Amino acid sequence: MNEEQKLIKTFFYPIADNKESMELKNDAAVLFKKKKMIITSDMMIEDVHFDNSYNPEILARKLLRINLSDVAAMGASPYGYTLNVAIPKRNRVRWLEKFSHGLNLDGKKFGIKLFGGDLSVSSKIFLSATFLGVVGNKFHKNFHVIKDSEIYVGGNIGDAAIGLSILNKKISLKDKSYFLNKLFLPDPQISLGKSLTGIVDFCTDISDGLLTELETIANNSNLKANIFESEIPLSIQARKVLKKSGLKKKVLELILTGGEDYKLLFSVRNSKKKYLKDNIKNIKKIGFFSSGTGVEIYDQNKKKINFKKKGFCHF
Amino acid sequence: MNEEQKLIKTFFYPIADNKESMELKNDAAVLFKKKKMIITSDMMIEDVHFDNSYNPEILARKLLRINLSDVAAMGASPYGYTLNVAIPKRNRVRWLEKFSHGLNLDGKKFGIKLFGGDLSVSSKIFLSATFLGVVGNKFHKNFHVIKDSEIYVGGNIGDAAIGLSILNKKISLKDKSYFLNKLFLPDPQISLGKSLTGIVDFCTDISDGLLTELETIANNSNLKANIFESEIPLSIQARKVLKKSGLKKKVLELILTGGEDYKLLFSVRNSKKKYLKDNIKNIKKIGFFSSGTGVEIYDQNKKKINFKKKGFCHF
Repeated sequence: MNEEQKLIKTFFYPIADNKESMELKNDAAVLFKKKKMIITSDMMIEDVHFDNSYNPEILARKLLRINLSDVAAMGASPYGYTLNVAIPKRNRVRWLEKFSHGLNLDGKKFGIKLFGGDLSVSSKIFLSATFLGVVGNKFHKNFHVIKDSEIYVGGNIGDAAIGLSILNKKISLKDKSYFLNKLFLPDPQISLGKSLTGIVDFCTDISDGLLTELETIANNSNLKANIFESEIPLSIQARKVLKKSGLKKKVLELILTGGEDYKLLFSVRNSKKKYLKDNIKNIKKIGFFSSGTGVEIYDQNKKKINFKKKGFCHF
Repeated sequence: MNEEQKLIKTFFYPIADNKESMELKNDAAVLFKKKKMIITSDMMIEDVHFDNSYNPEILARKLLRINLSDVAAMGASPYGYTLNVAIPKRNRVRWLEKFSHGLNLDGKKFGIKLFGGDLSVSSKIFLSATFLGVVGNKFHKNFHVIKDSEIYVGGNIGDAAIGLSILNKKISLKDKSYFLNKLFLPDPQISLGKSLTGIVDFCTDISDGLLTELETIANNSNLKANIFESEIPLSIQARKVLKKSGLKKKVLELILTGGEDYKLLFSVRNSKKKYLKDNIKNIKKIGFFSSGTGVEIYDQNKKKINFKKKGFCHF
């Protein structure tokens, strides 16, 4: 048995104790039961999505959670995943110990199966996961939005972006653990995603920032998204930062464009508005779609606010 | 639309023209038809699996083919894949142009669908693909090998390893294009993999070298694999290298341990030997399993040959 096989046996074999993985002895996993499924894939790269100060346990859990958030945005139930991991040779055992512990923790928490994958050496850490989810007849599609629909979010926006600014030393705060926790361990809104199937006209998770996601949906639907600053749900902690900061507009921009919150963003047409209001809790209306293009944000006095950037883009 | 979205729209949208991808507008692709499937994932990393002299078109095609080889090893029919691509910002348009051309070429050749994925910037190129294949009731499992089974390979061994040695300037040859082509564009043995279901006791593709793959199977089955050097099928070109080389043992070691050929390796028990011989063409018997452990290679005079290394390992 070579070193690669030993590492897989030690750290991944115990997590992959499901029928599908076939003890990781085959060239692929077998999905025995025929199900209607969705498939999504996301990656995390050192010095792009994180730096080497991140705890491998947190990296593992975040990798699972950002993928699970896409599963949630489809209105699907998580099934399982394949995993590709490339790491430096140095400290590989200690790193994999922590990383596999994180996989195990959240794997159990979310009831997901590790099907298999690939392990390699590399100079920088590279992580990639592909998730399968199971859907019924109804799931979310992102191209059926109509005029006058109301725009909703599934929870507080901006905490993760503030966390990232703390980490990048662009904001300095005494009590930073709340924000860092929101950045490191987003909560995929799986139950919410499922409960919205058949009710909302689109559903996506806010990974690249509220304004970017809204712009994409608006463009795809040839509509304009109108958002009210005062309606954006913020945590008490984020409100404090906004109040204290001498750079209110800059922090507001951060909240609206920073991303990484992984809250669901969706819209409801007139005929379903009452049902949504009466049946789905802990969601917040932030605006509506009208004729036009792009995204418009209004302040308390209904004046338009202009931002320099709309959202996060790697390129 | 930001730069990332523009690149996806320009280079990946045209290839992902299938129902499942839903125009790449959703957070995931939807696999509408319920099928019994297999899932496998493999990655390719700059400076580990290739260097920056590689043509992006070739990288794309090799990425598909090494994954398709795992699909073949399961006895499955290729269905489709998700793709994660991370590349440097510099020359991204030119790079993606060539890369997506390669995806398109082999995507059509093998009849596979691009379901979706992720695009990011990074200092080194990182590629990851996850493939789904469709299987019937019979597929290959790697833990049912029994004593006295005969060991077979699906074609010539060593050409890719010689190609890699040429590339790494460890071997110098005048006519190198044959070997480089075998290294860059392996042929996944999809038809062979399917035709072997229900006949052979294990089936795997030789990615990490013949001896490594055999050792893994032997260990999993508590058996010894016995291989005859003279029975290993070699191309005319490889035979020439072996003949010319003053370092016969070194080249032989390269052939047996170098990997990257992606030929199928399988075994057949007594009761199926005749059926295999009569019905499956272009395969070659190279040895048999006996009581014991590990792998033993014998020369023409039935003397054991000892090699320093068994196969390729990244760590």
